[in-house]
Amino acid sequence: MTPQAATPSYRRLGVEARRGQLLDAALALFARHPPEDVSLDDVARRAGVSRPLVYRYFPGGKQQLYEAALRSAADELGLCFDGPGQGPPAARLGRALDRYLAFVDRNDAGFSALLRGGSVAATSRTCAIVDGVRRAAAEHVLTLLEVAEAGPRLRTTVRLWLTTVEAASLIWLDEGKRPPAAEVRDWLVEQFLAALTVTARRDARTAALTEMLAAEARDA
Amino acid sequence: MTPQAATPSYRRLGVEARRGQLLDAALALFARHPPEDVSLDDVARRAGVSRPLVYRYFPGGKQQLYEAALRSAADELGLCFDGPGQGPPAARLGRALDRYLAFVDRNDAGFSALLRGGSVAATSRTCAIVDGVRRAAAEHVLTLLEVAEAGPRLRTTVRLWLTTVEAASLIWLDEGKRPPAAEVRDWLVEQFLAALTVTARRDARTAALTEMLAAEARDA
Repeated sequence: MTPQAATPSYRRLGVEARRGQLLDAALALFARHPPEDVSLDDVARRAGVSRPLVYRYFPGGKQQLYEAALRSAADELGLCFDGPGQGPPAARLGRALDRYLAFVDRNDAGFSALLRGGSVAATSRTCAIVDGVRRAAAEHVLTLLEVAEAGPRLRTTVRLWLTTVEAASLIWLDEGKRPPAAEVRDWLVEQFLAALTVTARRDARTAALTEMLAAEARDA
Repeated sequence: MTPQAATPSYRRLGVEARRGQLLDAALALFARHPPEDVSLDDVARRAGVSRPLVYRYFPGGKQQLYEAALRSAADELGLCFDGPGQGPPAARLGRALDRYLAFVDRNDAGFSALLRGGSVAATSRTCAIVDGVRRAAAEHVLTLLEVAEAGPRLRTTVRLWLTTVEAASLIWLDEGKRPPAAEVRDWLVEQFLAALTVTARRDARTAALTEMLAAEARDA
């Protein structure tokens, strides 16, 4: 009942806090090792809890924990494009990419595992998680660009650019994080504007967006 | 010893021909169903042979057959970019894309399975197959463009464009093969030229290539 009742070596956490703690431990492990090499014991040890406690939160065992960790990482990744919208759109997109590349840098092995899907734990469900995040990221980018209504061509262009962002990040990791992230970011922003310009030749909505972007760049 | 000795209902095939026949049967099935729903019995039935015969050619069972089928499809896909090189480069690239999209059209479900990797049969080995084919395709594109020596930036640009080709093909299938393949092809060629132009701003070799492409387009 007094603050002293809780010793520093034992922390009582609420349900969500405990769940988050277990997910963080799992993510840290999945980020460094392929899922097949991570055991529930590893997760319990890293979180400083017992194996039964992990099971209480994730009765589905490792597969459930893996999917939850994947979803948590994927959500965080998708949120990179959902940031504050100040300044001209190209600068906003650049800041979103800074957040994205910082995430990739911090979670390199986990990011590869997430996107390559090349693990024995990959199922149509884990693919659906990644797919859902990609769609959400595309919507965030359209919001960031203040596009109220995107036609299919513009939406496809944004989705394809996001696959370029993902693939460029994987190649960036493969190449030992070279060139510097800032160069990758600028290249990706320019690639996006170039891709929009191509789509604008056959789509009026995209043409309106590229004109708006060009005008804002002139005013900036 | 006479032609009559072989009846139409029983054909003796050489080792490679039989292997090819089994792969064709497997591909046809994997193209329509997720690998977990395809059994060796299905493959045997479709090829009109016994199950032990399938095992004789693929002692590793379904996983081995799946990987062999994947490799065969992936090889065929990679070869789309390894075609005859006549006419201006953009036209050559357009013809390569015609072959690619025709393959995607013919093998739609198999193509999705191959690239989404979202199957329980996906392993780091199947991913390596897909990865190897992507690298080979990038080399084919550089050859097709008569690039003798590509630096890392140009090579990365080609690889990233190929991921756009793959992702655009998946979206094209998702959208019920709309818009027509010819429109997707033209859009992809223009995207490639636009992507090169961005890279050319920071890479002399890519700049030389874009100048060459522009000159050939003027002469064509």
